[in-house]
Amino acid sequence: MSDGLKMSRRIRRTPYTNRIEKAGVRGFSVVNHMLLPKAFKPTVEESYWHLRNHVQIWDVSCQRQVEIKGPDAERLIQCMTPRDIGASKIGQCLYITITDVDGGIINDPVLLKLAEDHFWLSIADSDVLLYAKGLSIGMGLDVSVEEPDVSPLAIQGPKAEDLLAKIFGKRICDIGFFKFGWIEFAGTKQLIARSGYSRQGGFEIYLNGSHLGEPLWDMIWETGQTFNISPGCPNLIERIEGGLFSYGNEMTRENNPLEMGLGKYCKLDGSIDFLGLKSLQKIVSNGIKRQIRGVLFEGGRCTTCSIPWPIMVGDKKVGDISSAIWSPRLEANVGLAMIDRDFWNVGQIVSVQMPENNIANGEIVELPF
Amino acid sequence: MSDGLKMSRRIRRTPYTNRIEKAGVRGFSVVNHMLLPKAFKPTVEESYWHLRNHVQIWDVSCQRQVEIKGPDAERLIQCMTPRDIGASKIGQCLYITITDVDGGIINDPVLLKLAEDHFWLSIADSDVLLYAKGLSIGMGLDVSVEEPDVSPLAIQGPKAEDLLAKIFGKRICDIGFFKFGWIEFAGTKQLIARSGYSRQGGFEIYLNGSHLGEPLWDMIWETGQTFNISPGCPNLIERIEGGLFSYGNEMTRENNPLEMGLGKYCKLDGSIDFLGLKSLQKIVSNGIKRQIRGVLFEGGRCTTCSIPWPIMVGDKKVGDISSAIWSPRLEANVGLAMIDRDFWNVGQIVSVQMPENNIANGEIVELPF
Repeated sequence: MSDGLKMSRRIRRTPYTNRIEKAGVRGFSVVNHMLLPKAFKPTVEESYWHLRNHVQIWDVSCQRQVEIKGPDAERLIQCMTPRDIGASKIGQCLYITITDVDGGIINDPVLLKLAEDHFWLSIADSDVLLYAKGLSIGMGLDVSVEEPDVSPLAIQGPKAEDLLAKIFGKRICDIGFFKFGWIEFAGTKQLIARSGYSRQGGFEIYLNGSHLGEPLWDMIWETGQTFNISPGCPNLIERIEGGLFSYGNEMTRENNPLEMGLGKYCKLDGSIDFLGLKSLQKIVSNGIKRQIRGVLFEGGRCTTCSIPWPIMVGDKKVGDISSAIWSPRLEANVGLAMIDRDFWNVGQIVSVQMPENNIANGEIVELPF
Repeated sequence: MSDGLKMSRRIRRTPYTNRIEKAGVRGFSVVNHMLLPKAFKPTVEESYWHLRNHVQIWDVSCQRQVEIKGPDAERLIQCMTPRDIGASKIGQCLYITITDVDGGIINDPVLLKLAEDHFWLSIADSDVLLYAKGLSIGMGLDVSVEEPDVSPLAIQGPKAEDLLAKIFGKRICDIGFFKFGWIEFAGTKQLIARSGYSRQGGFEIYLNGSHLGEPLWDMIWETGQTFNISPGCPNLIERIEGGLFSYGNEMTRENNPLEMGLGKYCKLDGSIDFLGLKSLQKIVSNGIKRQIRGVLFEGGRCTTCSIPWPIMVGDKKVGDISSAIWSPRLEANVGLAMIDRDFWNVGQIVSVQMPENNIANGEIVELPF
């Protein structure tokens, strides 16, 4: 079942892994030193159509929480991000980038504000905990930085709301997009957010307490039968079509938030102070040199993009594709790519250089596809 | 070949991955967001005997380097480790732990001193780069913290020295254990250390320059034919027998260096200052509560230990096994375990609780096995 990935304690199982295995998982990835299920249905395409039409249950425990708590919590977080978090309210989720002094992206978590002095960073694949610890120790801040026993479970797809309302009551329908509320489960209060790594709608339950993982899974699974629930995972076709980025794929420390089209989340007028402010101001004043775009390209079903694929205009390399897959809906390959300024306009004709001299024609398109 | 692990750019390929695939790799792990080959020969036992008798070439690029350079380099590193690095010399490798304020282990890298103000930390599986960056920014140190394009290639086994002497000349024989020197390759100077993650002897070439990966592999591979060279990887049987620890398996942030038997590498007399000094002093004065030990146990060939296995004395849980495997040499299972003080004496009879109610008799033994 998982011949290709060698297991050990270091690659942490989740509270749901036993259920995932019973559900017939066919492959994993590793994110934040933890298993992320990556394949269930015979094909990613079947799973894609199911996600668009029904409801899926995803083990996204690897979205680990970095809990920042204490009098200096807000100060520490603001120092790490160009987004103005001062106006955020309790119960709000904020998509932020965490940046280095040079403006390079260290992570792109979702920030959850639990109280004025209490936050969770729901992280992508890098040890934000260590960065936050280092900063707080070095700056002598009065704050604790820990990883709580919280393992998000995502319920995604158009039937997610009906399913969860049936289990937890109609009150969850009042939760707005990128807001969170609380549900009762097994005598505990659990955080539920209207969010998730798809464009099909749904919720994420930030389960606090590993021992509750299997009962929670089972309850949703059983009630989900009448909604045609299926086990699933972030779907590569759906995420690329939806223009959802993946840290480590579309962006690394070599990229800044402006290149990722996240200028609207960067407060650069000096009204807030954060690491990287000066660098980002300089990048803006010099002009952004490249930016993320969609690429729609031919050449039949492309293979897995595990190294960047050069994008050419004539003999000139103008960018790289970082993630790509065949879209059964668009009947073409869809890719996410960082493209040089002179060539990033929608409609620009390009060619994509895949491995083994496989070259395909394509064009730059808007995101989402 | 790697059905179980879903590939993407985020899980970085190495300069040797093409060669590894050609050599018939049968599985990977992921360390530091990078592929680590984990299986070649039909069985880990065949590979074990080969490693003990011949020579193997290992892609250990995932041992990423955190380069710390500048006037405050030594100060930053000393602040992260309880080992006294003040007396270390250029050309020396030092095994160190990096600790948190509470004494918890954040990583256990090898420190290489390239110059008085220039170090590499050859890291285990956690983003030390982010911890070091956070600390240096927070403390306002004059130092750069980067990941250079360095990808270690290990040559391990009793024939490693003869093979490398044939290629790079007899001078490599003068390099002492845990020391490094320099070799010429393709017009470049490359660092070579007498070190590696086995007890069978050998070297690690810290190749600087990904474009040189395949030529270096090919040169060693071709000359290696007369030495019966084989592709390999850290061998679980050999590493457990040898008492070599794996960060994330035997130790996490929940453990301190004293529990890992690394008291000799902790300078706690106040002559050096580091994060965690007070915590470690307190742990010593209170008495160490548990420590790493070997466990030799029956029950036939054990399965993969991917969650800690409880160790019992009667009805009392006295520890956990974190890594275990069948040893064909000892004809028993060998495990590494954290054991409570009252039960850690050699000869203590225990029972090991494996999954599915598989209980085996065992005893505490010295490391290495």
